[in-house]
Amino acid sequence: MPAEERRRREALYRHGGAAWPVGAQAWRAAAAEVLARNHFDWIEGGAGEEWTLEANREAFKRWRLRPRMLAGNSSRDLGVDVLGTRCPAPFMLAPIGGQTVVHPEGELATARAAAAAEIPMVVSTAASHRVEDVAGALGDAPRWYQLYWVSDQDVTQSFLRRAVSVGCEAIVLTIDSPRLGWRDRDLRNAYNPHLEGHGIGQYTSDPVFRSRLARPPEEDERAAGAAMVKMFPNASLTWNHLAWLREQTRLPLLVKGVLTAEDARLARDTGMDGGIVSNHGARQLDGEVAALDALPEVRDELGPDATILVDSGIRRGTDIVKALALGADAVLVGRPYLYGLAVGGDAGVAQVLRALAEEVDLALGLVGAHGATSVDRSFVTEAPR
Amino acid sequence: MPAEERRRREALYRHGGAAWPVGAQAWRAAAAEVLARNHFDWIEGGAGEEWTLEANREAFKRWRLRPRMLAGNSSRDLGVDVLGTRCPAPFMLAPIGGQTVVHPEGELATARAAAAAEIPMVVSTAASHRVEDVAGALGDAPRWYQLYWVSDQDVTQSFLRRAVSVGCEAIVLTIDSPRLGWRDRDLRNAYNPHLEGHGIGQYTSDPVFRSRLARPPEEDERAAGAAMVKMFPNASLTWNHLAWLREQTRLPLLVKGVLTAEDARLARDTGMDGGIVSNHGARQLDGEVAALDALPEVRDELGPDATILVDSGIRRGTDIVKALALGADAVLVGRPYLYGLAVGGDAGVAQVLRALAEEVDLALGLVGAHGATSVDRSFVTEAPR
Amino acid sequence: MPAEERRRREALYRHGGAAWPVGAQAWRAAAAEVLARNHFDWIEGGAGEEWTLEANREAFKRWRLRPRMLAGNSSRDLGVDVLGTRCPAPFMLAPIGGQTVVHPEGELATARAAAAAEIPMVVSTAASHRVEDVAGALGDAPRWYQLYWVSDQDVTQSFLRRAVSVGCEAIVLTIDSPRLGWRDRDLRNAYNPHLEGHGIGQYTSDPVFRSRLARPPEEDERAAGAAMVKMFPNASLTWNHLAWLREQTRLPLLVKGVLTAEDARLARDTGMDGGIVSNHGARQLDGEVAALDALPEVRDELGPDATILVDSGIRRGTDIVKALALGADAVLVGRPYLYGLAVGGDAGVAQVLRALAEEVDLALGLVGAHGATSVDRSFVTEAPR
Amino acid sequence: MPAEERRRREALYRHGGAAWPVGAQAWRAAAAEVLARNHFDWIEGGAGEEWTLEANREAFKRWRLRPRMLAGNSSRDLGVDVLGTRCPAPFMLAPIGGQTVVHPEGELATARAAAAAEIPMVVSTAASHRVEDVAGALGDAPRWYQLYWVSDQDVTQSFLRRAVSVGCEAIVLTIDSPRLGWRDRDLRNAYNPHLEGHGIGQYTSDPVFRSRLARPPEEDERAAGAAMVKMFPNASLTWNHLAWLREQTRLPLLVKGVLTAEDARLARDTGMDGGIVSNHGARQLDGEVAALDALPEVRDELGPDATILVDSGIRRGTDIVKALALGADAVLVGRPYLYGLAVGGDAGVAQVLRALAEEVDLALGLVGAHGATSVDRSFVTEAPR
Repeated sequence: MPAEERRRREALYRHGGAAWPVGAQAWRAAAAEVLARNHFDWIEGGAGEEWTLEANREAFKRWRLRPRMLAGNSSRDLGVDVLGTRCPAPFMLAPIGGQTVVHPEGELATARAAAAAEIPMVVSTAASHRVEDVAGALGDAPRWYQLYWVSDQDVTQSFLRRAVSVGCEAIVLTIDSPRLGWRDRDLRNAYNPHLEGHGIGQYTSDPVFRSRLARPPEEDERAAGAAMVKMFPNASLTWNHLAWLREQTRLPLLVKGVLTAEDARLARDTGMDGGIVSNHGARQLDGEVAALDALPEVRDELGPDATILVDSGIRRGTDIVKALALGADAVLVGRPYLYGLAVGGDAGVAQVLRALAEEVDLALGLVGAHGATSVDRSFVTEAPR
Repeated sequence: MPAEERRRREALYRHGGAAWPVGAQAWRAAAAEVLARNHFDWIEGGAGEEWTLEANREAFKRWRLRPRMLAGNSSRDLGVDVLGTRCPAPFMLAPIGGQTVVHPEGELATARAAAAAEIPMVVSTAASHRVEDVAGALGDAPRWYQLYWVSDQDVTQSFLRRAVSVGCEAIVLTIDSPRLGWRDRDLRNAYNPHLEGHGIGQYTSDPVFRSRLARPPEEDERAAGAAMVKMFPNASLTWNHLAWLREQTRLPLLVKGVLTAEDARLARDTGMDGGIVSNHGARQLDGEVAALDALPEVRDELGPDATILVDSGIRRGTDIVKALALGADAVLVGRPYLYGLAVGGDAGVAQVLRALAEEVDLALGLVGAHGATSVDRSFVTEAPR
Repeated sequence: MPAEERRRREALYRHGGAAWPVGAQAWRAAAAEVLARNHFDWIEGGAGEEWTLEANREAFKRWRLRPRMLAGNSSRDLGVDVLGTRCPAPFMLAPIGGQTVVHPEGELATARAAAAAEIPMVVSTAASHRVEDVAGALGDAPRWYQLYWVSDQDVTQSFLRRAVSVGCEAIVLTIDSPRLGWRDRDLRNAYNPHLEGHGIGQYTSDPVFRSRLARPPEEDERAAGAAMVKMFPNASLTWNHLAWLREQTRLPLLVKGVLTAEDARLARDTGMDGGIVSNHGARQLDGEVAALDALPEVRDELGPDATILVDSGIRRGTDIVKALALGADAVLVGRPYLYGLAVGGDAGVAQVLRALAEEVDLALGLVGAHGATSVDRSFVTEAPR
Repeated sequence: MPAEERRRREALYRHGGAAWPVGAQAWRAAAAEVLARNHFDWIEGGAGEEWTLEANREAFKRWRLRPRMLAGNSSRDLGVDVLGTRCPAPFMLAPIGGQTVVHPEGELATARAAAAAEIPMVVSTAASHRVEDVAGALGDAPRWYQLYWVSDQDVTQSFLRRAVSVGCEAIVLTIDSPRLGWRDRDLRNAYNPHLEGHGIGQYTSDPVFRSRLARPPEEDERAAGAAMVKMFPNASLTWNHLAWLREQTRLPLLVKGVLTAEDARLARDTGMDGGIVSNHGARQLDGEVAALDALPEVRDELGPDATILVDSGIRRGTDIVKALALGADAVLVGRPYLYGLAVGGDAGVAQVLRALAEEVDLALGLVGAHGATSVDRSFVTEAPR
């Protein structure tokens, strides 16, 4: 859709001239309309045959709620506290890089909406905007930082320092991406997200990263992208390396990408403060297990006191309640807010977050729970057969 | 379809110029043709992604009949007695409000058809017509009353008194709707059923409800609707409150919306006379269990002597026989008769009820049962895998 | 398709101007082309929602073959002996009435093809043609008789005598049809098979049946049809009545329509010589179990020596091999030969039977069996999940 | 597509004027475009209803990967050693005959691509080209020979000698094809692959085979085809005959077509060096088990030291990793390289092989494995339900 027409449509939504979409699928359809196909494919697509993309949703469909009536839950406490960070509803904004390909204002628009709702945002290392700018847009709102541990450790350390200096309250180390996944759609589109939109601002603004370049990124965007692509893969990392990370900061550390009891145990044994059960929105390894299906295994391994989040496949409030019932302390929401961003900028993100919180509240109400922390496994059952 | 054309088509059906649809899907298609889309969506739609809507049907499909031959059942007793109310076939008309959006004559047409067939009708608190008028249309036929326990207890009490005074033989308290479910279709259509058709006649005719309004509803329909919407949610209710209800009437009391053994036990322990296993036709909490899947759990919890009904997902006579086999004493039929009402007014409802009774009779005949009360769990098995 | 065009097409097939269809679905498509929709619906349709129609096929799909290689089975004995009747391949022609609606020559064409292949035909009580004429077309080929035990026992007895007198070698009593099933398609088409094609020749040729009519059927076809429809339902029959049948003939007696271990036991205890596991091609009670799914239960109940056949859902040679593996001594094939009859008259039936025998032979060859009687349960396994 | 247009398109791909397809389905679609329908059907189709064709893919979908993070696997050894043959990645090229119907250069193009990638090729007895010519195109690259043990044992022996003389390192005896499967598509197309393309060069070049013909195949192609078709079926073979084969050569012997523990045991007991779990790409016996589903059973029967390969249904790198996890030492890839051959000749095959190796490498990387031999059953789990 031409930029002009797109702006006109966004304005219509903002000023009440058009009703916001209802439900994640309608949001997705609306996003598909405004975005160029290659950009939409980039946010929507999964790895390979997209079997895991499909499995992520099927898992939520397979688990069913067992509601209790007359629970006397006229007021419900949606809030959760995750490692000291207060969430007004049991979800945060998942770390997603390069959001300027979705909307010209990218992470800044997302941050404004998150701040207005006081919903914590996990800022991505791959952001189009500098973390300092995103932090500015967040104001006083809570924020976490998602870290890619690139093979140039000084750059990694620099990212970490900057995150701390802008008040990030926890560090989320992504461990499922030693290399980028094989995404058929992007390969077909010859899509290089790093060269789209405003590029990789968090990298190109980093003093250590810049020191690695022959010329400033402003003068040679391609070389900067290449440098980033070169240092991104870091398959030599092992659990033993986490001791170094542990020394760098007192902030809570979480690992994102835990899909087995084996890794859950390793995360605990290496001193991590929490784990995020995730398959990276099905964008890394096609054919791997659905995130929700891995959640009970991870919770069972770590026990009731561990901090466990989940993402990948969450679209509706009822999904969130199911995740809570299966052992999540909170969830990360990803694509839904990207759809909102595509369709309506910060106002779109705000609407998505608002509807999602309302859906969670209503689902808790109807399932008979008094709050986000009072949903246990007795509230779900697997579909027969 | 324009009203004129719709009347012409209904007349054709009535006078034999067109054959009635055969099978629930054909009825639904015919209803979809005559109704405006927003009205059709309102009766057809489920909550959220409509996963539970789909699950309700799948559950019936998953259970399969094990027929016995040469049973010598040349005459079959279709009738059941439910808490003293005689049903000529093992089903009643489920409580559905606002039927004037389906057909101008609404509940009155439904009542005439129910009366002609002597099939008990459960009149809804949300009816477009006053219960006194519906009762008049029912003549001597049996009737039950579905109660929404609104937060204004005096209004609730008034509803109850009126129900008793028009001869309702049992009270069905709906417990699955402390708030209205999240229905994507209606939200998209910005659909307010209370302002459609003849409105909420049962409320606006109620003396206590009227006393709460600044102006009579005839003068300010919107304010009346708002008052209704305001008092509808009543999430503060608990099982303990049922003692009050128990004191108000000697009529049999049933709770509608039981989906777990836990709630079944609570219903029994609070002195309820029966339970209706229901997910409100999948209109309340998307992702919850299919009603039929909850039925064996509830029956197992309460034992063979408890009175248990089921609704949600019933479309054909074989569905009813499966429900009986899984432990229901009788079922409530909802959407099927709405389709009939849409297509042919009272004659359409009558045809739907007639066909359904015939289907039940034939299914009992072919399954080798001597009557509605002689079908036990040995008559069903789950589909392999 | 107009009769002229249809004849032209049939001639093309017969004289090699067009290749016969390959595979049951292609045959069905070809039959759908030549038949009027209401006739095609009559042969193709199942009861109700056609869930059992679908289940019949799914059951064959769910069971998978476990082939053994290098079995040294260069020649395979396809033949089976069923209660003294020799079958050159492990299947017979299922009893199907009213075949003149499928092709003008009806059962006579079918019989000629069966005779040429020496495949036993089970002649139906509801045949368009007199059993004497069908027997004539069969020549010396083996035949069984399918009996509907109508409520006028003298007529039943007359049918039986006629069957014996034309050399039928066994009697198959259909026990799953105390009344006709509820078939949506036929109800929509207001289809009365008894008044289509050449009508119900086996009835109208019966002296006892004729004696019940006020006027000969040649003069009042409708009255004859009505008399047949009136005496058809016979739900008063019980297993105890089988003693009478047992006394009438020394021929082997089989009951067709056994779907449970309970009924299998009753059949054995009442002296039946064999049972046919069948749901009447899914035409009687929708939602009942798939025939193939009932087969192991029946075989387990009756032990290895009992005579057990199966029908309902068989379309390919591999289906037949799976049925043998799950305990059938032979199978009845229905719709496939009707498709052949529709498309090519006796030549079409012959082609269907020939291809099916070839498929069975090839499947036995590839599965590593030396013959139809050497396939046991180790040759199948259920699909995972 | 006309040959001229097809050559133009191939040239475009070769010279970078068009991007190669990404993912097996895109390759298949591209192949379907360039090939005549009957040729495409021949390579794509399965036996009968194609239920096993579907089951082969479903099995890969059902098994899900359980990845381990931070495995420190920055370099991965993709290679495997199979009975002395080095594979740079854990796959070989499956034996496929008659490749000139896919591309004019047929097996020669395939061989050049295999040689360039040093990926072992299993040359088929049914090849369009003489094994001597294929061997020439392979240069020094590793090769195996797939043997059809035809009923004329002298011909079989001649094939074997020729294979040995051109340096084949192992013999793969196909045991699942005592006769050709029933393939609906080919029967409908009246397709005779032996008379298409360059015909059956491996046969027609064989001195012993030629000695069986009245006239040289160059003069009477049909008679040569008929002679081949006549000697092809060899259902009299048993496991006992393998002793003769064992005596003929010291090369490793594998049997291809093992689908049960029973046959696995027989293969071991008859001195075979390895087994290939395969259902012939679902082209032989429809309705049989998926190859991947048979793999764990075969591995469990033979223990960890046996040499076991698998084919049938492999399309992506993740499929290969799953096969390794379930017990395969390596896999054979079939249709994927045929798609490449159809679309781009040797360059197309090379691209398919390159992408597949990259996919395997990436999948091993993301699953946390250090190489092809370090993936065990703990890396997979079946999808719930």
